[in-house]
Amino acid sequence: MSHLQLNKNGELCHFLTLDGLPRALLTDLLDTADSFLEVGSRAVKKVPLLRGKTLCNVFFENSTRTRTTFELAAKRLSADVITLNIATSSTSKGETLTDTLRNLEAMGADIFVVRHADSGAAHFIAREVCPHIAVINGGDGRHAHPTQGMLDMLSIRRHKGDVASLSVAIVGDLLHSRVARSNMQALKTLGCADIRVIAPKTLLPVGIEQYGVRVFSDIERGLQDVDVIIMLRLQRERMQGGLLPSEGEFFARYGLTAQRLKAAKPDALVMHPGPINRGVEIASEVADGAQSIILNQVTYGIAMRMAVLSLCMSGQTARRQQREEH
Amino acid sequence: MSHLQLNKNGELCHFLTLDGLPRALLTDLLDTADSFLEVGSRAVKKVPLLRGKTLCNVFFENSTRTRTTFELAAKRLSADVITLNIATSSTSKGETLTDTLRNLEAMGADIFVVRHADSGAAHFIAREVCPHIAVINGGDGRHAHPTQGMLDMLSIRRHKGDVASLSVAIVGDLLHSRVARSNMQALKTLGCADIRVIAPKTLLPVGIEQYGVRVFSDIERGLQDVDVIIMLRLQRERMQGGLLPSEGEFFARYGLTAQRLKAAKPDALVMHPGPINRGVEIASEVADGAQSIILNQVTYGIAMRMAVLSLCMSGQTARRQQREEH
Amino acid sequence: MSHLQLNKNGELCHFLTLDGLPRALLTDLLDTADSFLEVGSRAVKKVPLLRGKTLCNVFFENSTRTRTTFELAAKRLSADVITLNIATSSTSKGETLTDTLRNLEAMGADIFVVRHADSGAAHFIAREVCPHIAVINGGDGRHAHPTQGMLDMLSIRRHKGDVASLSVAIVGDLLHSRVARSNMQALKTLGCADIRVIAPKTLLPVGIEQYGVRVFSDIERGLQDVDVIIMLRLQRERMQGGLLPSEGEFFARYGLTAQRLKAAKPDALVMHPGPINRGVEIASEVADGAQSIILNQVTYGIAMRMAVLSLCMSGQTARRQQREEH
Repeated sequence: MSHLQLNKNGELCHFLTLDGLPRALLTDLLDTADSFLEVGSRAVKKVPLLRGKTLCNVFFENSTRTRTTFELAAKRLSADVITLNIATSSTSKGETLTDTLRNLEAMGADIFVVRHADSGAAHFIAREVCPHIAVINGGDGRHAHPTQGMLDMLSIRRHKGDVASLSVAIVGDLLHSRVARSNMQALKTLGCADIRVIAPKTLLPVGIEQYGVRVFSDIERGLQDVDVIIMLRLQRERMQGGLLPSEGEFFARYGLTAQRLKAAKPDALVMHPGPINRGVEIASEVADGAQSIILNQVTYGIAMRMAVLSLCMSGQTARRQQREEH
Repeated sequence: MSHLQLNKNGELCHFLTLDGLPRALLTDLLDTADSFLEVGSRAVKKVPLLRGKTLCNVFFENSTRTRTTFELAAKRLSADVITLNIATSSTSKGETLTDTLRNLEAMGADIFVVRHADSGAAHFIAREVCPHIAVINGGDGRHAHPTQGMLDMLSIRRHKGDVASLSVAIVGDLLHSRVARSNMQALKTLGCADIRVIAPKTLLPVGIEQYGVRVFSDIERGLQDVDVIIMLRLQRERMQGGLLPSEGEFFARYGLTAQRLKAAKPDALVMHPGPINRGVEIASEVADGAQSIILNQVTYGIAMRMAVLSLCMSGQTARRQQREEH
Repeated sequence: MSHLQLNKNGELCHFLTLDGLPRALLTDLLDTADSFLEVGSRAVKKVPLLRGKTLCNVFFENSTRTRTTFELAAKRLSADVITLNIATSSTSKGETLTDTLRNLEAMGADIFVVRHADSGAAHFIAREVCPHIAVINGGDGRHAHPTQGMLDMLSIRRHKGDVASLSVAIVGDLLHSRVARSNMQALKTLGCADIRVIAPKTLLPVGIEQYGVRVFSDIERGLQDVDVIIMLRLQRERMQGGLLPSEGEFFARYGLTAQRLKAAKPDALVMHPGPINRGVEIASEVADGAQSIILNQVTYGIAMRMAVLSLCMSGQTARRQQREEH
């Protein structure tokens, strides 16, 4: 599937999944995001890289946070931003999805950021409709959330250095989590020696072994001496009855408390993709504690999205030139 | 009515209807749009013509497509864009329409794009409230959709040259179609020798003869040797019971199929204002076929809207100067 | 409370209330707004003062007018604008207000414009969450609407000169009006010798005397020889049953009619924060009459909001530098 994301030079031209992307490309994204972090700390937080380009947020599923971070990233790159709330727009006039997208294409959109409840929606869009448009997956079903995966890698690298020599634990509802899938893929590609997942059996996806992880159902054993803890959001809105008895019981068995945190290394990082459910998957004192980099992740997220947008756009430009030469 | 749209030099300062606009002015719009099409194909799709101007989308009726195309056109001209969804805003606090508009005026808006379910709404607004503001009709009731009319003329000119010597057929629900009215006016003004309308009698407006058209109720006879076919959208949401037995029956009698298309010239253009109802007024194989320029129309639409915005703004500037001199 | 709004040099770095702000600072705001009024009348209504800054509209209560005026003010200063409709966003996913705001902070927002139904919400936000971010109160409950207060002072100064020697009457529902509170504070600080409030006893807040005002329950006596009349909007949506018998009765006793206006000086100004309720608190002939500057207030409002945004931003920059030096 990864060939769909790359042009003939192996440069990124869509960003759909981390599955199959080479390590050098992930490192390139991390390096580029590092340079954009510096832009975010300037008095004038703006560079003209995407001036005159149009980013179109195509959101089939509401997500204020993801939409806002892409909008901010695009504006800091000087792009124009259009937001389509598909639920209430022309599709309700009976137009097909493909027709809607071809129309946006004809209007001269350069980038689609797609958020969809169905796994594979961004792939479908990239394959079917968009010759020169970069498609960015802003989260599709349980499948992938690759910008979140890469901002997590950036967070780890900035606070702990190379992930290869670290122990990283991912804790919580892995079954429903696109964030977990993207993180496991990134960690594996970047050569992380010790990836652990901690969850009750009912919240583990089938085939989790393919990611080269060690599975723990006991959180304190799983956290033993880890360098990084990635807590997952309990996707209450995604859960159907029966998988979990109650939030209270989940917290009692898998919530990250100050006591449990002691099992990890003393300087272990605490991470979470947000928004956090205080007292459900994480205790407030841990979320707000000295080891938490949850808010730093948000800052890094803008820089990583700037990196993804600018690299995909330059990959598309190169691809267009390749086509024109042939 | 056309004098309302023109300043003392005969330049456009509102854009409300094509009715009564001189041929030279339509040609000027087409030429200007041609030059903006080149901007749309650049790497940096932006010119500074309307920098520091504020366009206000005043939408009394929802239309994602029209709003988005005006927003894109304005941003490519470097204008700032504000969108008001009137249904949910201050009018619900009991403010009158005139008060809402005078407030926007006082905020320094330069352009209103108005979309309204009632015929004549844009005229009312241009007449009553706006001394220096350009009012653009983004579609009012069954009355007019002049930017759509002009983008259709641009589409024909770019693919077939001067419309004067062409045969053009407009097919479908003419009764409810503002697009059809604007198209017939434009074709007549530009000297089109053979304008045909094809529709069941129940979907023809009273007084259609004024446009200088030939009326056909049989689609195959109407399409005979035409150069251009403009299909109309079946406005299902506008139809009240009784006018049409069923969509299936409409398609059976007036839908554009590959078979019927053979009646036209072999290189006849197929056009549609979108969004298309596949299998209702047009067959998918025709909509997606080699003769269809439906998606090109969308691209031309951005350029035409840029032309309308920039010409109206310069007409307003000239009018303001004229007033200051007197 | 005012220290929260000022940096160590006494410069504005938040704008929460006029209560306690020194006269020199209010005068500075008026002078700065005067200079921005000139920008609004230029062909290119844009200055680069806030280029690369991000303003975030954080609206817990819907207000198209306030949101739009801040958006326009920010864009004329070249800032990027993000709007969050909190009612429908991540707070509905169970995130706390503080977490939402800390996330916006981490995304690199520079200014929050806050609108909230609860008195004190903007203060809470300024105190709890924002080290380098300017918080602007866009209206909180019955408490304050300081940008409205200052745009009213600008309106008076531009049409009548120094307010110190003027008689100013505020008329209507003072009990529910944040506008009235901000106006009384501004008038007092600027040394207005004669501030009058005109209202039925049931619509007067407890402790109104602290503002140094004279209270009238008879409108014609209260308006006697005043220079300025500030009508308040009857906040019908805020009223609970029992305080007023009917709108008609309110107009009969307190509505501003042409007849009553004669009690004031012949050139007295008529002001209103909008949106107006014609025939409820003000007669149409007065609202549209020669003495009305209601629409001018809207224009001045953009300039005043530009002044508030730019002064707060430069106060924050100075504060950041102070911190870095220590």
